[in-house]
Amino acid sequence: MSGSDFLQLRAEQAPAKGLTGWLAGGLRTAIAAGRLAPGARLPATRLLAAELGVSRGVVVQAYQRLVDEGLADARTGSGTVVTRTASIAPRPAADRRRTLHELRLPLSTPDGIDLNLSPGVPDLAAFPRAAWLRAERAVLDRVTAADLGYGDPGGTPRLRAEVVAWLARTRAIRADADDVLVCGGVAQGQALLAQVLKGRGEAAMAAEDPGSRGTRDQLRHWGVRTEPVPIDEHGLLVGPLRATGLDTVLLTPAHQFPTGVVLAPDRRRELLAWAREGNRLILEDDYDAEHRYDRAPVAALQGSAPERVAYLGSISKSLAPGMRLGWLIAPRGMQAELLAAKHASDLGTSALPQLVLAELLTNGDYERHLRTVRARQRARRDALLAGLRAHLPRARVRGVAAGLHLLAELPSGDDVAIAERVRAEGVLVHPLSWHRLRPGPPGLVLGYAAHSPDRLTEAAARIGRVLSPR
Amino acid sequence: MSGSDFLQLRAEQAPAKGLTGWLAGGLRTAIAAGRLAPGARLPATRLLAAELGVSRGVVVQAYQRLVDEGLADARTGSGTVVTRTASIAPRPAADRRRTLHELRLPLSTPDGIDLNLSPGVPDLAAFPRAAWLRAERAVLDRVTAADLGYGDPGGTPRLRAEVVAWLARTRAIRADADDVLVCGGVAQGQALLAQVLKGRGEAAMAAEDPGSRGTRDQLRHWGVRTEPVPIDEHGLLVGPLRATGLDTVLLTPAHQFPTGVVLAPDRRRELLAWAREGNRLILEDDYDAEHRYDRAPVAALQGSAPERVAYLGSISKSLAPGMRLGWLIAPRGMQAELLAAKHASDLGTSALPQLVLAELLTNGDYERHLRTVRARQRARRDALLAGLRAHLPRARVRGVAAGLHLLAELPSGDDVAIAERVRAEGVLVHPLSWHRLRPGPPGLVLGYAAHSPDRLTEAAARIGRVLSPR
Repeated sequence: MSGSDFLQLRAEQAPAKGLTGWLAGGLRTAIAAGRLAPGARLPATRLLAAELGVSRGVVVQAYQRLVDEGLADARTGSGTVVTRTASIAPRPAADRRRTLHELRLPLSTPDGIDLNLSPGVPDLAAFPRAAWLRAERAVLDRVTAADLGYGDPGGTPRLRAEVVAWLARTRAIRADADDVLVCGGVAQGQALLAQVLKGRGEAAMAAEDPGSRGTRDQLRHWGVRTEPVPIDEHGLLVGPLRATGLDTVLLTPAHQFPTGVVLAPDRRRELLAWAREGNRLILEDDYDAEHRYDRAPVAALQGSAPERVAYLGSISKSLAPGMRLGWLIAPRGMQAELLAAKHASDLGTSALPQLVLAELLTNGDYERHLRTVRARQRARRDALLAGLRAHLPRARVRGVAAGLHLLAELPSGDDVAIAERVRAEGVLVHPLSWHRLRPGPPGLVLGYAAHSPDRLTEAAARIGRVLSPR
Repeated sequence: MSGSDFLQLRAEQAPAKGLTGWLAGGLRTAIAAGRLAPGARLPATRLLAAELGVSRGVVVQAYQRLVDEGLADARTGSGTVVTRTASIAPRPAADRRRTLHELRLPLSTPDGIDLNLSPGVPDLAAFPRAAWLRAERAVLDRVTAADLGYGDPGGTPRLRAEVVAWLARTRAIRADADDVLVCGGVAQGQALLAQVLKGRGEAAMAAEDPGSRGTRDQLRHWGVRTEPVPIDEHGLLVGPLRATGLDTVLLTPAHQFPTGVVLAPDRRRELLAWAREGNRLILEDDYDAEHRYDRAPVAALQGSAPERVAYLGSISKSLAPGMRLGWLIAPRGMQAELLAAKHASDLGTSALPQLVLAELLTNGDYERHLRTVRARQRARRDALLAGLRAHLPRARVRGVAAGLHLLAELPSGDDVAIAERVRAEGVLVHPLSWHRLRPGPPGLVLGYAAHSPDRLTEAAARIGRVLSPR
């Protein structure tokens, strides 16, 4: 035990140059970690120098640096003493965990849950690590200073060009690369749209009911209220939309969240007619359009009315939500405001992931990955469907043609209470009511992408036991 | 030349499965690209099927899909005709380039410039590609579903822990991992702070004058006005700060932007005393603290007053601004609001770059990279200094101890006009006036990190020729 143990520095690790900085860093760490408490006297400079095998001048300079920084005080006759600096306040009641809870972000699966069927999460075990790394290597091989510097806040030109080509082919989008705003997922696209609309004086928009609760919460944060519009088995009802008197609607036409309904051709025409009647705007959230199992998707609305639709998509459902990478294609009259809002938010989205995605789109690996997960997810959906038929024969299953989840409509009951009982069996599901603004029939929203067929069969069996106990 | 050339599809590339989707995609692309104009009649199904070597049913289904999507119309007797859908409006006057110009974002070096000495950009040719790729491989090898899913909006736990340890050691920060909010660079941190302060009713903050023009513009976007506070050779003047009557100040104490002044110990104590007098807040922008050449940096203010300082840093000056990766360590009483604002903005920062940076901090590659670029930048600074001494003997050079730029104060003249004349010589510099709110002595802000010593000598010579023509 020596007088400098608090430092946890070893003389033999001292760098050849910058000894003073090395020692000052060790002292700061010791203070920050509480090994040197306020009021503690630092060792005599001569003694510490000898222990560390450095010159006394190094120690004197390191101490002086702490004094300059207000971390220590040099008192004549009593050496150098750690200052009683302002301590860090204890965490206020609204601490991190509570905040996350209030944001409805349980970051880990609750205890006792072994089958988390929350909707919206893809099979992350299938993330194409090898392809991503290969693409990253290719990108780093040719990356330029312009790529890594302060770039276009709307996204790298290469990704914008690849995205627009991909969406023209797969979703019939009509746009050019300059129309694309690369952003941190659909969520950031919605935030930017909300900011611009609010700035124009629009404090409310219509939205599907049931619809995503997270999106409603987010819009409220930005001062935009959502007015519920009912849906039926053909999608959003345009009559009630018109009755709201609002000029903006947010919807998920390709695979309604959470019911999975596809907007029918007639309804689609009706909606586009509504949009063209005035200076109206459709926010088209195309969140899981890549995941189609039984037939190809209907095209995006955007291609039929580029000046009336702001189109949103991302790689959250195809690669990983944690990548926070998506795109917004808005009518041209809004683009300048959106670009300014994006710039003021974060100057732009991280460049390397953008370039890697562009590479995956160019070399075909993105499409190959989609084909792989689509086949896997189809098998999973089929297993869950078979399980539900066997164990919940009275449920009506909807939204099965696409996406990462389906809806089991229940003949009766309180779906929140049912989800609680299902949870006690180790299965986490969303009651449909969570996503409703107005009352309606009960249901369970079941995400299946992240589980093997066997596990999904097991989940259906457990849900069945809750609903029809023997 | 055949009837299906507009499709640019080759029969031999037809996929084994999904022929209808393949053909519909080709038709959409042809429409989007204008190869199939509104009013054009699609080839007869039998003919196209023969040309492509597919069954007629495939063509019929693909055409039907376009009709469903509103891209085509099936008229009895006249075949299928591309619909005259709403065309994309021409770009409005405020087009992309103009918007970028208004945001003061010239994305490429102007014509005729071969020496761009704009401040704030590191030597991007030194980006550690091999280390980054190695770290990315290590991260992908062990990445979990939790890492790639919807995560903590405040950042991955691993990066938060690494950042706080790094900052405790190098900047004397006092915080724990939960105090760190990972964000899209200092810019996003400032945006989030501005939103929270504005939400609390603060419509103005004090800021150094001269100071970053980009930051002032950004704060104005969020409804926060900046009140200028003068600086001298010891940094911000606390008397004038007090006279503003404001409770928040934004400053760059370690290396003032753009003058390079370091906040002197006395001034530092005065500022901290001001902060402790009331419920006051210091926004500490520590944008280039890693780049010290002659002595170690003074510690961050945050360590002396964690409850009065919101600390901001990033990898923009150490690795690359295009990574958009930084951190905000705010007083605990603000953290819940900041986390909610971050969540509502984009749900969080991209996970993979966070994990890669954490790996670089763990394995020491980040520190090694800093040492390498520090040595290189010191040599560059010295070359520019020598050049300025030789060619601008009457300029007073400031801010040389740190950072990626220095300030050449000029004895007289209009620095905007001088910068224009320097630009005509192929050298881009910032006139100090750009960053001033109130008039003051002229100067040129010279970024040196991205150029070799030879080129910097050349730049100094050209500037000298402008100032002292022969």
